[in-house]
Amino acid sequence: MAQAVASLSTPTTNHRALYSQRGQAAPSMPRLSTADVEGRISFVYGFPDPDSLPAAAIATATTQALTAHGRTALQYGDTTGYPGLIEVLRTKLKRDQGIDVAANQVLITAGGSQAMALVLDTFVDWGDPVISEMPTWLGAVQAFRNVGARVIGVPVDDQGTDVEAVARALDQLAAEGTRAKFIYVISNFQNPTGITTSLARRRRLIELAHAHDTLILEDDAYFDLRYGGDSLPSIFALDGGRSTMYLGTFSKTMGPGMRLGWLLAPAPIIATLASLKIDGGTNVFGAHVAAEWLPEHLTDHVDLLRTVYHRRRDLMLAALAEHMPPGTTWTTPDGGFFIWVTFPTAIDTRRMLPQVRERGVDYLPGPACFSDASGQNQMRLSFSFASDDTIAPGIAVIGDVAKGELLEAGGERL
Amino acid sequence: MAQAVASLSTPTTNHRALYSQRGQAAPSMPRLSTADVEGRISFVYGFPDPDSLPAAAIATATTQALTAHGRTALQYGDTTGYPGLIEVLRTKLKRDQGIDVAANQVLITAGGSQAMALVLDTFVDWGDPVISEMPTWLGAVQAFRNVGARVIGVPVDDQGTDVEAVARALDQLAAEGTRAKFIYVISNFQNPTGITTSLARRRRLIELAHAHDTLILEDDAYFDLRYGGDSLPSIFALDGGRSTMYLGTFSKTMGPGMRLGWLLAPAPIIATLASLKIDGGTNVFGAHVAAEWLPEHLTDHVDLLRTVYHRRRDLMLAALAEHMPPGTTWTTPDGGFFIWVTFPTAIDTRRMLPQVRERGVDYLPGPACFSDASGQNQMRLSFSFASDDTIAPGIAVIGDVAKGELLEAGGERL
Repeated sequence: MAQAVASLSTPTTNHRALYSQRGQAAPSMPRLSTADVEGRISFVYGFPDPDSLPAAAIATATTQALTAHGRTALQYGDTTGYPGLIEVLRTKLKRDQGIDVAANQVLITAGGSQAMALVLDTFVDWGDPVISEMPTWLGAVQAFRNVGARVIGVPVDDQGTDVEAVARALDQLAAEGTRAKFIYVISNFQNPTGITTSLARRRRLIELAHAHDTLILEDDAYFDLRYGGDSLPSIFALDGGRSTMYLGTFSKTMGPGMRLGWLLAPAPIIATLASLKIDGGTNVFGAHVAAEWLPEHLTDHVDLLRTVYHRRRDLMLAALAEHMPPGTTWTTPDGGFFIWVTFPTAIDTRRMLPQVRERGVDYLPGPACFSDASGQNQMRLSFSFASDDTIAPGIAVIGDVAKGELLEAGGERL
Repeated sequence: MAQAVASLSTPTTNHRALYSQRGQAAPSMPRLSTADVEGRISFVYGFPDPDSLPAAAIATATTQALTAHGRTALQYGDTTGYPGLIEVLRTKLKRDQGIDVAANQVLITAGGSQAMALVLDTFVDWGDPVISEMPTWLGAVQAFRNVGARVIGVPVDDQGTDVEAVARALDQLAAEGTRAKFIYVISNFQNPTGITTSLARRRRLIELAHAHDTLILEDDAYFDLRYGGDSLPSIFALDGGRSTMYLGTFSKTMGPGMRLGWLLAPAPIIATLASLKIDGGTNVFGAHVAAEWLPEHLTDHVDLLRTVYHRRRDLMLAALAEHMPPGTTWTTPDGGFFIWVTFPTAIDTRRMLPQVRERGVDYLPGPACFSDASGQNQMRLSFSFASDDTIAPGIAVIGDVAKGELLEAGGERL
């Protein structure tokens, strides 16, 4: 038999010289480590409440799924997704989101992340322009960087995506003789700002996409988790699914560990994405379990989650009001997981992070949410993961460190 | 609430004009559909025996995993993989493969497919050269095409990879002032030929990789499924893991539905691959279930599978001897799932496929295993999926159709 070999971590080959553009641009270590959240009051990631994860019901659903469908649940699966899950999803989208799609307009993906990666592979060559809200989802910032997208950022204000900035960006690209590959927006409870884009702006985005013959990639990861305000029709629905791709996920409702999301798009686009998706089927086992669990449990579970997160949002808002230094502002989201905090410009949230972490608290510095690393005086706070009783103490630490930074900055100015 | 919208499958935007090189090159529909294997005697895919999938034990393992680790199994996970599964894998690799690696040399992936995709993203820009055995794994042929790799094929003979053809390819690239990004080989029971590369050739491949400062990507998906002959040390082990990446999977042993595979590589390469792997963790739920199931069940289950597949291989070899037309040759694999059949050159296996399918049998035409669509008179037969009693009747149909084709071709020549 094979002999054991020594573990060598130094390669003989000069592998870096062999790297592609993507390989060369990859940072050494931006990856997710769950150890980051252990033993801390963590406001850093959009992790669901661990106590609400439906472990027992999923165990039961697994036994049911394997009893009924053991031969398909453990086999390779369709590239476009387990048909049983696609049917469950179509029913859910019609009931909750008012979105009515055919099965060939659906692609089941490993969370929203695989959907984003496939869209980028399908549309973006190195250096191609993409318009995106800035700040935006950390995973999108990283995915754009990975494929070398030229990201043209547009701000988010209290009505959502700044559509006139989108119009200017489109005009600018047209003047250059090029075109955005797509416009990426998070329409509800935007990550990280928590802001929902208004109905008028949704309609304007569609007009702009049609006028400039480009696409919209609408990310609606947080749709189900609304704690206030009225639900708006998605851009995808308003557009009749013609120039819009719609990304969603079960990560925030059933659980991220299932790694199940989806993309809706015109059927020809789904066919192309599926051609690039050489994966033997997306998480076939988990998809069968989800198809068993979702019809019976999703609605009740979402009701439970809304109660939990609504309460945590309010706890965090109250703590911010109590502990933040003067001159600090923050958003009040109608749903989702995030509050976006803007400090006086003397604050650098990356610089103050080690002090906060040393005191057992964690947050996401603003620059992580920008492709150009701006947002230096901003931070994203997730209220989903830390338990109720730790929210106020955690925010107090952040407020305390921020006040110290401001004092020091004021002192330096004297 | 959102109103229901009509399902429109025709996009307004001219999406094809927005496609990347990858999007433009993607064929309209090469994707996997499990419906293909239903109601047929299917020798087409490397699907495991459905009756041997361990559904009941996996249901039990799921309950155990969710009871013990419900908070992590349903949460986001580490980009490099669930540490519990990495430990189980390291133990297995040391025990069975004689491979001893550190945890930072391991990346857990969604089957072997995600490992291949990440390696291609990290090393291959459009048009970059890759050396690969031809014929090879259908998924590799598709993945190479997706990223626009310039594939330089080297034959497989009865000793495995034709290493002198590799040497010539390396020399040719050097003469052009370039270098192969890597050399892709399936060292044991090659897919599709079933041939195992000899020890001398394994050593020669390492010499060549070192001399030309390139890497080897060794795919060992079928390692555990050996029915004859002696186990050889992997190229990865012989090389001390210095210039070799090693790809494996639980798809052929635990079950493809788990979508769990791995890549071993020098630690700096793993770090880069992980940077490009924005996926919230690979199948976190399934990884926890696998970490529970594998230690207790893998060895016994592999023993069972060896018995099943050994018998099916022999049934298929006997049926080929009985039913194939004169002038037809085939390989006798020591393991894995595949037999590679070469017909007289008058046969076109793509042309005869509809007749075979009409009679309820299916196989993979040779050209699917070549980047240049050669192999017109060859076919891959998988003996893993079709039940014992259907193998001889299925092979009889193929032999019958092939004989008819030869008669017709002979008649045309007259």
